[in-house]
Amino acid sequence: MSTYTAINLVARPEPGPISPDVFQVVQNEVPKAGPGEILVKQTHMSLDPAMRGWMSPDTESYIPPVALGDVMRSSGLGEVVESNNPDFKVGNRVMGMMGWTELYLGSGEGLRQVQEGMDAEMALSVFALPGLTATQGLYGFSEPKAGETIVVSGAAGSVGSLVGQLAKADGLNVIGVAGSDEKCTWLTGELGFDGAINYKTDDLNAKLTELAPNGIDMYFENTGGPIQQHVVDHMNAHGRIIVCGMIADYQSAVPSAGPNWIPIIKKRLSIQGFAMPDHFGDVPALVAKLAPYVMSGKIKHRAHVINGLESAIEGLNLLFTGGNKGKLIVKL
Amino acid sequence: MSTYTAINLVARPEPGPISPDVFQVVQNEVPKAGPGEILVKQTHMSLDPAMRGWMSPDTESYIPPVALGDVMRSSGLGEVVESNNPDFKVGNRVMGMMGWTELYLGSGEGLRQVQEGMDAEMALSVFALPGLTATQGLYGFSEPKAGETIVVSGAAGSVGSLVGQLAKADGLNVIGVAGSDEKCTWLTGELGFDGAINYKTDDLNAKLTELAPNGIDMYFENTGGPIQQHVVDHMNAHGRIIVCGMIADYQSAVPSAGPNWIPIIKKRLSIQGFAMPDHFGDVPALVAKLAPYVMSGKIKHRAHVINGLESAIEGLNLLFTGGNKGKLIVKL
Repeated sequence: MSTYTAINLVARPEPGPISPDVFQVVQNEVPKAGPGEILVKQTHMSLDPAMRGWMSPDTESYIPPVALGDVMRSSGLGEVVESNNPDFKVGNRVMGMMGWTELYLGSGEGLRQVQEGMDAEMALSVFALPGLTATQGLYGFSEPKAGETIVVSGAAGSVGSLVGQLAKADGLNVIGVAGSDEKCTWLTGELGFDGAINYKTDDLNAKLTELAPNGIDMYFENTGGPIQQHVVDHMNAHGRIIVCGMIADYQSAVPSAGPNWIPIIKKRLSIQGFAMPDHFGDVPALVAKLAPYVMSGKIKHRAHVINGLESAIEGLNLLFTGGNKGKLIVKL
Repeated sequence: MSTYTAINLVARPEPGPISPDVFQVVQNEVPKAGPGEILVKQTHMSLDPAMRGWMSPDTESYIPPVALGDVMRSSGLGEVVESNNPDFKVGNRVMGMMGWTELYLGSGEGLRQVQEGMDAEMALSVFALPGLTATQGLYGFSEPKAGETIVVSGAAGSVGSLVGQLAKADGLNVIGVAGSDEKCTWLTGELGFDGAINYKTDDLNAKLTELAPNGIDMYFENTGGPIQQHVVDHMNAHGRIIVCGMIADYQSAVPSAGPNWIPIIKKRLSIQGFAMPDHFGDVPALVAKLAPYVMSGKIKHRAHVINGLESAIEGLNLLFTGGNKGKLIVKL
């Protein structure tokens, strides 16, 4: 009997770093694809900040949590090894929610074909959750205009780095906020951001004054933390804030307070929270919006690759310490 | 030589109650209307929470502050006593920004004719800033739907009481938040609100659970204060928050913290701040939207009238202590 490895969620994480004890590595018997089913050998798996939410028992979130005992949820890329579904052929590369597992068995619903010749890391770093999220967030609620100033927190992260590059391609003044000088140098040097702020060492107010002398028109929020209040203080009238992530607070037992709402009135700000599952129906349109930027060479990415399914268990915490440099991908 | 009384702003208010020392009562010579000008004898003057902002030196607000030495800004109603402007006849009743003064002299630009037969208190309580603000806030950014639940803070105030009645007429479950049992009784007894919460004495969380068993879809924020966090906790997915006022914080030296932003993502909330000066061009449309509700008898109001121009000086603080019962109006 041949087996494959999967990792199940068996407990809810406590505040703080995610303990390896919440996961259980299991060996399952290799299944056969049943009628209408396909079997996919996963080759690359994406680790995303949203996973912390998926593991939590909160019933108010936008998608149900992973049930205890189930395979941990994730998106990934793999190759079809058996198919009883006419939409998929053996050898096709597919992308979608397959979970922390070497083998995916299912109907293939929700899986997309990966364009021929597209590198797996590019597919997961750009044309998966990060790129869809960046595109929906930047364009879905408000129109970024050339000459405006945008601040992106978590700017070296998988979503933030794409948001900043898209905005730069559209002619905005782009300021990234990140947690190390190395990341800041990457933002301004490699990605062409107009400015970068190291939130751990810079004087946030002084830096915003310097880099956004005409104020801030858009804020793409991926992190929370002290930068939030400073950005609100520097927002212009009719500024738009897109709230995509609050990674600084996902691990906290007591989330930090937010800014007082007086500036929301004085500056007539719009604040919009969003989560991608609401927009999965728009994926084709989002890909169509994003693709020309990528094809014209305006979008760079970097992947932080770790090796082997089980490396996900410790690797996941890199997202919350900021230890990853680029899109965190597990190579199986 | 005959004179009239006006009140000038001569200093910026400190945090806390507004000192009478920031005002100076002056006697001016009664002017003659020049070419194209009208002279209006003001009979009623509106006191509004926004005045605190107009008195402050903050350059970031939506309209410039009142300059030191100028007549304090306010809207009011009066009768034309001289006219060299063909749009106005002597005896016409007009409404608009005339300031803390017995006599207004100017071109008449921005003044509107008051409909014949309309009571002055009704005009200032409903068809002036309060009604325009309520209508713009409730309908201008999002559509309230029958069966939804709305919470209105500052519900016994001039704007809040109208918002709640409009929403009730539209078939929403309407919950008002106010600062006394008397006000709460007025909301549910006279105005037909479905529920009321006394933020000073009630258990806010328990009351929201009781009155909004299906969660909150819209929040019309007039006050800030501790109710804000509780309402955010009870919001439904895709909830809409309209931020109109933060009166609890206008007098504070250090504004209180706001809610953490994680629920904005989890519930995909929209938060929209607004201020009426952005929407003065829409006044005819707003009046057209509001009028049918009033004409069909669905909108009640109450005015809290104080007497004499100089009563405005102490009277203004009633808005910040919650001491007023209804729209605060100075009768000249």
